[in-house]
Amino acid sequence: MASKLITIVAGVGPGTGASVARKFSANYPIVLLARKPENYESLAAEINSNGGKAIGISTDVSDAASLTNAVSAIKKEFGNDVGAAAAIFNASGAFMRKPFLETPAEVFQGSLAVSAMGGILFSQSFLPLLLNGVQQKSGYSPSLIFTGATASVKSNAQMSSFATGKWALRALSQSLAREFGPQGVHVAHVIVDGVIDIPRTREWLKDMPKEAKLSADAIANDYWWLHTQPNTNFTWEIDLRPAIEKW
Amino acid sequence: MASKLITIVAGVGPGTGASVARKFSANYPIVLLARKPENYESLAAEINSNGGKAIGISTDVSDAASLTNAVSAIKKEFGNDVGAAAAIFNASGAFMRKPFLETPAEVFQGSLAVSAMGGILFSQSFLPLLLNGVQQKSGYSPSLIFTGATASVKSNAQMSSFATGKWALRALSQSLAREFGPQGVHVAHVIVDGVIDIPRTREWLKDMPKEAKLSADAIANDYWWLHTQPNTNFTWEIDLRPAIEKW
Amino acid sequence: MASKLITIVAGVGPGTGASVARKFSANYPIVLLARKPENYESLAAEINSNGGKAIGISTDVSDAASLTNAVSAIKKEFGNDVGAAAAIFNASGAFMRKPFLETPAEVFQGSLAVSAMGGILFSQSFLPLLLNGVQQKSGYSPSLIFTGATASVKSNAQMSSFATGKWALRALSQSLAREFGPQGVHVAHVIVDGVIDIPRTREWLKDMPKEAKLSADAIANDYWWLHTQPNTNFTWEIDLRPAIEKW
Amino acid sequence: MASKLITIVAGVGPGTGASVARKFSANYPIVLLARKPENYESLAAEINSNGGKAIGISTDVSDAASLTNAVSAIKKEFGNDVGAAAAIFNASGAFMRKPFLETPAEVFQGSLAVSAMGGILFSQSFLPLLLNGVQQKSGYSPSLIFTGATASVKSNAQMSSFATGKWALRALSQSLAREFGPQGVHVAHVIVDGVIDIPRTREWLKDMPKEAKLSADAIANDYWWLHTQPNTNFTWEIDLRPAIEKW
Repeated sequence: MASKLITIVAGVGPGTGASVARKFSANYPIVLLARKPENYESLAAEINSNGGKAIGISTDVSDAASLTNAVSAIKKEFGNDVGAAAAIFNASGAFMRKPFLETPAEVFQGSLAVSAMGGILFSQSFLPLLLNGVQQKSGYSPSLIFTGATASVKSNAQMSSFATGKWALRALSQSLAREFGPQGVHVAHVIVDGVIDIPRTREWLKDMPKEAKLSADAIANDYWWLHTQPNTNFTWEIDLRPAIEKW
Repeated sequence: MASKLITIVAGVGPGTGASVARKFSANYPIVLLARKPENYESLAAEINSNGGKAIGISTDVSDAASLTNAVSAIKKEFGNDVGAAAAIFNASGAFMRKPFLETPAEVFQGSLAVSAMGGILFSQSFLPLLLNGVQQKSGYSPSLIFTGATASVKSNAQMSSFATGKWALRALSQSLAREFGPQGVHVAHVIVDGVIDIPRTREWLKDMPKEAKLSADAIANDYWWLHTQPNTNFTWEIDLRPAIEKW
Repeated sequence: MASKLITIVAGVGPGTGASVARKFSANYPIVLLARKPENYESLAAEINSNGGKAIGISTDVSDAASLTNAVSAIKKEFGNDVGAAAAIFNASGAFMRKPFLETPAEVFQGSLAVSAMGGILFSQSFLPLLLNGVQQKSGYSPSLIFTGATASVKSNAQMSSFATGKWALRALSQSLAREFGPQGVHVAHVIVDGVIDIPRTREWLKDMPKEAKLSADAIANDYWWLHTQPNTNFTWEIDLRPAIEKW
Repeated sequence: MASKLITIVAGVGPGTGASVARKFSANYPIVLLARKPENYESLAAEINSNGGKAIGISTDVSDAASLTNAVSAIKKEFGNDVGAAAAIFNASGAFMRKPFLETPAEVFQGSLAVSAMGGILFSQSFLPLLLNGVQQKSGYSPSLIFTGATASVKSNAQMSSFATGKWALRALSQSLAREFGPQGVHVAHVIVDGVIDIPRTREWLKDMPKEAKLSADAIANDYWWLHTQPNTNFTWEIDLRPAIEKW
């Protein structure tokens, strides 16, 4: 299997991560990373039963040792010289929308640990595999894609426990785009500006038309489009929102 | 012919405009707008001989009357109730990179007349056709796409005769995205951050690898991708640059 | 009088321009520019009667010839080698908040003519006087200050006839800051993000506390602060808004 | 002493922090926070001998318990109901300018711990004192000011260990400005875009004129100006750079 490039997706659950994994699984073996196996088990089974290949690895992206273990497991499965076609960071720390002085410091710490340090540790773990992918000169430019949010560019009142991590992650993506673009890795940041239509948000915006929510599968198509851009035309950042969104 | 949606491209020449026209001609009849017929004649002939349909109309986008004439000519050709699938504004006013106090006022005037007023007049002329296109509910969301540049977001010394028009055009695109998105028209702005590989730039960056310039055909693919986004996932803005570009 | 540096203020009326003129009149002779003499006559009289010196010149900043006349009148009054300590562009074109397709092209044209071309022509007219001011090495760094608005950085639906001109003006200010800062002229842009408390807005926000509007005199203090910054610490841009403003 | 508002400065050393402390000490008793007493001892002595009042408290802003101790020490000195006129966060985590894959994770962790979590913990510790200051309705609006850098808005290659923390801090400041402005606290963010002229940078830019570095005392004047803005005219953000800086 070692000759085949893989795709790693961190932060899978019944939403964007799953859609992205399904989309990329048509071309690449998929590694699914999530803390809880129940977040990737059925998805891995689905991909495997549909003719793709997927493995899940229980991983805490805020923990360097956990990521080291994930890389070892990947190499055991795909070979020590495995290369990556794509690494997609779709994790976000938990946060609270509440008055700043009522938000425990632990919430900020946890959000930064996943959104900021998680992004950093994920990138340090998988950029070597992406650079391996560049060496293999097969197909599209290996891609490192980060999922952002409205809060990546706008820091509203009572939202700082989310925005601090998301702005840090956007800073990471911009610096990495500048450093690794010339090395052949396509680093991109996607600002998802709206509510995604996933099971967790089923009860949201119920008095609005269905088009008021972003489609997770369409987000996956957008990630795939980013991945297929040639190295003459890399996009660092896109925004995505429903046509009827107020912004 | 009236039932078929058309695509209008303003600012065609041997570069991005031509690539975009070719790309969209696989799906739509194309209307090519340029001041000088020599800028669209061979392109129209090429598209027509390749099985597409294209007409050229000599048009000065900085002149309201000229655009009114263009709309009349389009309706004569495609029917009074013609709808548009896409309208692409790829024109830019001429500018000078020189000390501010040595740049004639006419240069600023001319740049604003095309980049800013041209964009406004073009949008006022073709948004009604795009809204007609929305009514026909066929295929992709009708799209109004503006070509921007590095100077759309950064105004360097000695570049104000370019940047003033380009910032105004970006402002236009953002306002129109907010107003017409909810009406079903996808308004997008593309920041082309680098040198495009076209005949006019053949001698530029000669000591750099070929990948140092943007591919015009790849830009056209990106415009097409914007056009095909569903109305749950509209992108307002993307940036595009060569992987090895310093930014 | 030729040895004394002057301050030019364009766009005076009973608002920010008048407050700025009063503030700077404590240190410099003031030249007031407005199309209609009734917009500067009482202000000039007030400054002159308070021990300052002010003259008004009927000027249309969107008209190069009108500005040439203004410069001639200034040189006649203050000497051919007059230098400027400050030039403040506070003019804005009229605009309409209405649906894009119902906004006459002339409104856009008029807004760009004042906000964009007016700023360009004003800068081309008075930068030579500001550079003269630099040569005289007396006091603060000669300053060119532009008044911006919320619409200088955000282009809302139905606001494009305002935003296009204001984004262009901001682009101008950024380019000039980069070109003329190294020559000793301090170029700054002020984003006024809210309603200013002036006679014209007396009936606005009536159910809000008085602090919901910006103070024009306080804006004048902020312009003065910008003017007094040493050349080691130039600010290009500040935003200003009431503490209780939602943003 | 309880009736007098105090100013807290975190991140003092022989640079901006010291200049700010000196400036504000003309009006307020000063509390100096730094991990190492040698960073505040001579400054406190200087302020006290010049007729001001200053105390230093050894504090690690990345450690919640250390900040709790600092607040206790302040209340012991100034009374339980002490209010603050200003709290200035001038601390930054250490970082490395080096290839991303050669930068230890601990460097990122340390930078985020000070620049991001430090800013959060500092704000949670001192906003209650600033809100107390608002209640006392004496003098200027209590102010919470954060020191930013070029890397707060631009994330260059090899600079992500600095930029991630600085972007997070900027996000914090924007959210707090929106939440606490309406409560009367002026929250501001200062982008210092250049080299500050302090002992540590004496050997930098030696072939440039003296004006190529920012003056720390002038930065302190700018912070004071922010502090004195009335609540009708709050500035959230300013940039500061030498006139001759390329940007």
